[in-house]
Amino acid sequence: MVKTTSLLGKMAGNRTSRRGFLQTAGVTALGGAALAYPLSRDGGLIPGAHAQEGKIPDFVKSKDLDALIKHSGKTYETKRGFIGTSVVTSNDIFYVRANLPEPTDAILDDRNGWEVAIEGVKNPGKMTLGELKNLGVQTVATVLQCSGNGRGFFAHETSGSQWTVGAAGCAIWSGVPLKTVIDAMGGAADGAKFITGTGGESLPDGIDPKTVIVERSVPIEAMENALLAWEMNGEAIPLAHGGPLRIVHPGYYGVNNVKYLTKVALTEQESEAKIQQTSYRVRPVGEKGAPDQPSMWEMSVKSWVTNPVETASPGKVQITGVAMGGLGDVSKVEVSTDGGKSWQEARFVGPDLGKFAWRPFVLETELAAGTHTIASRATNEAGDTQPEDLPPPPRGNAHNGWKAHAVDVKVG
Amino acid sequence: MVKTTSLLGKMAGNRTSRRGFLQTAGVTALGGAALAYPLSRDGGLIPGAHAQEGKIPDFVKSKDLDALIKHSGKTYETKRGFIGTSVVTSNDIFYVRANLPEPTDAILDDRNGWEVAIEGVKNPGKMTLGELKNLGVQTVATVLQCSGNGRGFFAHETSGSQWTVGAAGCAIWSGVPLKTVIDAMGGAADGAKFITGTGGESLPDGIDPKTVIVERSVPIEAMENALLAWEMNGEAIPLAHGGPLRIVHPGYYGVNNVKYLTKVALTEQESEAKIQQTSYRVRPVGEKGAPDQPSMWEMSVKSWVTNPVETASPGKVQITGVAMGGLGDVSKVEVSTDGGKSWQEARFVGPDLGKFAWRPFVLETELAAGTHTIASRATNEAGDTQPEDLPPPPRGNAHNGWKAHAVDVKVG
Repeated sequence: MVKTTSLLGKMAGNRTSRRGFLQTAGVTALGGAALAYPLSRDGGLIPGAHAQEGKIPDFVKSKDLDALIKHSGKTYETKRGFIGTSVVTSNDIFYVRANLPEPTDAILDDRNGWEVAIEGVKNPGKMTLGELKNLGVQTVATVLQCSGNGRGFFAHETSGSQWTVGAAGCAIWSGVPLKTVIDAMGGAADGAKFITGTGGESLPDGIDPKTVIVERSVPIEAMENALLAWEMNGEAIPLAHGGPLRIVHPGYYGVNNVKYLTKVALTEQESEAKIQQTSYRVRPVGEKGAPDQPSMWEMSVKSWVTNPVETASPGKVQITGVAMGGLGDVSKVEVSTDGGKSWQEARFVGPDLGKFAWRPFVLETELAAGTHTIASRATNEAGDTQPEDLPPPPRGNAHNGWKAHAVDVKVG
Repeated sequence: MVKTTSLLGKMAGNRTSRRGFLQTAGVTALGGAALAYPLSRDGGLIPGAHAQEGKIPDFVKSKDLDALIKHSGKTYETKRGFIGTSVVTSNDIFYVRANLPEPTDAILDDRNGWEVAIEGVKNPGKMTLGELKNLGVQTVATVLQCSGNGRGFFAHETSGSQWTVGAAGCAIWSGVPLKTVIDAMGGAADGAKFITGTGGESLPDGIDPKTVIVERSVPIEAMENALLAWEMNGEAIPLAHGGPLRIVHPGYYGVNNVKYLTKVALTEQESEAKIQQTSYRVRPVGEKGAPDQPSMWEMSVKSWVTNPVETASPGKVQITGVAMGGLGDVSKVEVSTDGGKSWQEARFVGPDLGKFAWRPFVLETELAAGTHTIASRATNEAGDTQPEDLPPPPRGNAHNGWKAHAVDVKVG
């Protein structure tokens, strides 16, 4: 685990590149006309293809679209200037990212009747959400962040949504601790090394399920903080965010927090799904994804400025942003208004929601007329500081270099 | 102040009763046909009269109406079972209460251009919201609660919305500290004893403005925590909650947190508005509201169960609820499943957002078949515990008696 974290800090991985996909196995059926969903050459959904042009899909209708950048009909990020200083990110402006078409609203009609299979335990079986709610309650605040957040800042060509900073938000989740559930099922089966969560999206016909299913494994050490969650920021989890039931792994990239959870298994091996085996793997440019590369698991230390981002008036200004520590507390944030030549320590504002949450920060300063390059640089309790840039060869994921995240602000 | 708090703990006040209103001064024009809004005999808006029957007003359209009890077209409370364990209450399910018809959405078109007058300072003047944002940033979590929350539990007849528990929510607010603004205007004028906030709602023609304007004064000691806030739970404050700018007085009842803020004045006297002089006054049943009675300012210690509230299955259950300390931290919550004969201490769950926030609590227990009266009883750091009931004569506000807030749950 430590090795992975450190790798993620030193380099950046990528999803399977589209160009490389046809060399992977088991996907010869891909060009078939019988597919239920429009798929790209790598088996991923074609961005925007699911949603009719100009139409907002139902599952994002409750969103404040003025606050979002639309990358496709089911892919939205929060605009940089709309990320506030209230610690939590409102569900109305929270980013949306889906690997498969979302289920219909009908799955929310009987939330408490939703069933999840618990496997890899002494007494495997199914539990309903209603039963889970009687078993235990815990609440944790955590940043949820797509591992591709920041992809748009890479200088080289990258495949996938060109996220800037807004494929991330901080939410407070309530659910039952996974370990409570496992205990109720007799404890882990022998040899369990991973927690494997399976999503409940419908799969297209005529294609090997492994190539599209959302099924992710994380090291069993994540058990300590894992929740089977039914509540997000005080309301029943919206469909766009995985309701009725989602697995939440605090400190882990978004893809691991499987939505519409239908199965949790403690497994000896990682899932055989493509999304686990070859996608979301950290590797140099030019290499194909492979199971022996580090997976997109733990997040790393990161921060970005949220105001000002384009223009400001000369004089006093409050430079604000958010900073996260990854798997541990963020301990310091510095802000530069000269592109990194000099730094000043910012102060954190608002309540501290715990080590997995992000912390809004503020630096009060004066800006003269002209153009200023404003950057932020966070350090976590382990002493990890954001790098200026990722050492070559950077890929399309896990970007936490402070330089590329800076903004040029025109003052005057 | 201490005297007031203690009074609020020992008795409960009420809004001016409708029956008593015509004896107050300056309202002879009330019956006039020229009024822009339908008013009741006491000059308050007739519940539901503003909204066309069956129509949802624009300013509540973004709400999750399944989670709300509608008292009138502009008065909604959160259903008891929808108050979660995530500390914050989502804006989508947050209660709505307005003393006057809300302004139109147009006031949100240029949030940063919104002007607020600052008076009762050495250098009075106006500031735009854009200017306030450059002046300072602070973030605080606080319960917002209508002083009438719980009114529906009084055994005697009460006027006003028959709130149960849901005219309350906990939100995280960002804005500039009021003291920073006052300092920027040269400091307080001599003799200032109150902070008086004025709302920007349009006032009906043909009626003395004092009888309807939303203008509330709180003791100047509230300066320590007061915010001029533009953000609520991570998003720009929605219209229903006072955007673009609201004054937030952590620990004070909702009415003091004036919406659509157009003026803040440091004053020697309390506002002359009826909403300050005679409404929201703590007094015995039968007495009219008067300025020498305690005003609905500081909130008191309170809690209520949110699950289960109607039925449950026999066996293990997680009894959840929320508890607040008023002006200070809540330190303990006890839960009874036998109507108060015996009590067990519950545990708090989730992050502590500070002394003005509420804390979700959980008691894990077993319930046998039958009907159980489940109650909760909170104690704050000052040692104040919720009373079993309010000593007679209770009125229609500030109800924090644990007995009336209990639920009868049928198990089996």
